[in-house]
Amino acid sequence: MVILGVDPGIASVGYGVVSYEKNRFTALEYDTFRTPAGQQLSERLLQIFNFFEQLVRRYPIDAMSVEELFFNTNVSTAIHVGHGRGVVLLAGAKAGVPVFEYTPMQVKQAVVGYGRAEKKQVQQMTRMLLHLKEVPRPDDTADALALAICHAHASGSRLCTLSPR
Amino acid sequence: MVILGVDPGIASVGYGVVSYEKNRFTALEYDTFRTPAGQQLSERLLQIFNFFEQLVRRYPIDAMSVEELFFNTNVSTAIHVGHGRGVVLLAGAKAGVPVFEYTPMQVKQAVVGYGRAEKKQVQQMTRMLLHLKEVPRPDDTADALALAICHAHASGSRLCTLSPR
Repeated sequence: MVILGVDPGIASVGYGVVSYEKNRFTALEYDTFRTPAGQQLSERLLQIFNFFEQLVRRYPIDAMSVEELFFNTNVSTAIHVGHGRGVVLLAGAKAGVPVFEYTPMQVKQAVVGYGRAEKKQVQQMTRMLLHLKEVPRPDDTADALALAICHAHASGSRLCTLSPR
Repeated sequence: MVILGVDPGIASVGYGVVSYEKNRFTALEYDTFRTPAGQQLSERLLQIFNFFEQLVRRYPIDAMSVEELFFNTNVSTAIHVGHGRGVVLLAGAKAGVPVFEYTPMQVKQAVVGYGRAEKKQVQQMTRMLLHLKEVPRPDDTADALALAICHAHASGSRLCTLSPR
């Protein structure tokens, strides 16, 4: 199966396309998509949407795995990121790709086996599972790849949660 | 000019298409678009996006006027509504329609002339300005129409604010 992991945002959106066949992961494409500060919010949302609409067309994606937003951050930041997350979910829905959501703790649990693992541990395990020479940079990219791995593990073990209301 | 006012949300999204020519308002179409509870968030976002994409094509809309979100609500609600607001802004940006944002206080100021006016006063003034027999229902519809009126007044008096970052 091919999974698109996404760490949502407005200024930077991490993404990673990962294939998972016979217990082996391959990273097909990964990076962080950025939108310029100073531009209108609606224009930035359009750029994010266009990028993900094309990305989803470029690969035969079976599932999208998107980070659930923290609820302990400040409200205006949360709304802001909510806008970006909304258009990413929309790009998935438009292409008929099922969308799954995981909390950071679920990602840690699935990748490292321990829900309170440190970020560095998650990144090292992500690097190893994907047979990469270095930890992907920036953190948003690494987080997106970990989300994709999380879904591969969770969907095998039926731990996955569908996008809630 | 033709203005589309939107009161964003997920379960219900108020909208009102209003024309403003020679100081006279005409309500062209207004209602509240609803998405069913129990459906996946990404699916509901797709329905909202499709609806607004079509609405923006159906009228020669010069500007979209969208309510700014309250920041005093609870964070998970704020994120949730942020998703819906994001796809509405996207529908505007995709069609090349400039998007403007107003706070409830700016709407009250523009419609009633007093930033702390009560909701009923705003609704009655909206009804009168649009030559309607009754106050539009539900509140989301009335709020959307008030947003459209707000932009007509504000753009005349150069009080309008472009969608921020």
